Amino acid sequence: MNDALKITNQFMEIALKEARFARDRDEVPVGAVIVDKNNNILASNGNRIIELSDPTAHAEILCIREASKKIKNERLTDCTIFSSLEPCIMCATAISYSRIKKLFFGAYDYKTGAVESGIKYFETSSCNHKPEFYGGFKEKESELILKSYFKMKRV
Amino acid sequence: MNDALKITNQFMEIALKEARFARDRDEVPVGAVIVDKNNNILASNGNRIIELSDPTAHAEILCIREASKKIKNERLTDCTIFSSLEPCIMCATAISYSRIKKLFFGAYDYKTGAVESGIKYFETSSCNHKPEFYGGFKEKESELILKSYFKMKRV
Repeated sequence: MNDALKITNQFMEIALKEARFARDRDEVPVGAVIVDKNNNILASNGNRIIELSDPTAHAEILCIREASKKIKNERLTDCTIFSSLEPCIMCATAISYSRIKKLFFGAYDYKTGAVESGIKYFETSSCNHKPEFYGGFKEKESELILKSYFKMKRV
Repeated sequence: MNDALKITNQFMEIALKEARFARDRDEVPVGAVIVDKNNNILASNGNRIIELSDPTAHAEILCIREASKKIKNERLTDCTIFSSLEPCIMCATAISYSRIKKLFFGAYDYKTGAVESGIKYFETSSCNHKPEFYGGFKEKESELILKSYFKMKRV
């Protein structure tokens, strides 16, 4: 395994850890982490929609807000976001607005994902900034966390 | 003018006032307000992207977050949002997630709007909750605020 892939897997593990924390809070288990160009972590978080009474509190949005605040700049140029799940339309748009350079995600979300699924936001004419994006990292682990959560909720 | 239109215009005036406040903070002048079913104002705000170093700090998102927090519920069922500008994709998605019942907006945004323009988010299969929506209220006033702001920025 090359160094770049090792580093990607390390950050995906952190996103998965945040997804598990979200599950333990009884939130849909999605986690994310944002790092700067030197791979310093600026923010990591999981869904907190119920906890914060905030329908926008998806993992990616919380990370973007925290990272931007930390560097006192609404543009996260040269930063990378890792998400355990393919971002939805709201989060994909926020990633574009934040000027994040690269996006890595775990499981594909064929229903509400908007990167390689659904409207494929970054390919639309509405999108002014398109990050590089790569899906399927730690895909099985991410799917397992999600599936076991929804199975538990149905019982 | 019937009462319903009078009330709509009153809240659109508040959204426009928030847009002007945003302009005075040197933000893109968009304002919004959310009211509950009894027309009590739960939140009103304008863009604060630069001020808060937050690329998600659009007027509508800030209002949704504030209103949800106020009623301690991530669902704003039976609430109405008034925005001076046609919501973008991020905000349209957040409006859907919040279960807001009705959306009134002022100017159309043919470039980045996502309600009657662009991807028309509420018409897509990704959208699980579609609010009633009505555009073109106080349209000219909203356009004027936006146009004068962008003209000033170009000088």
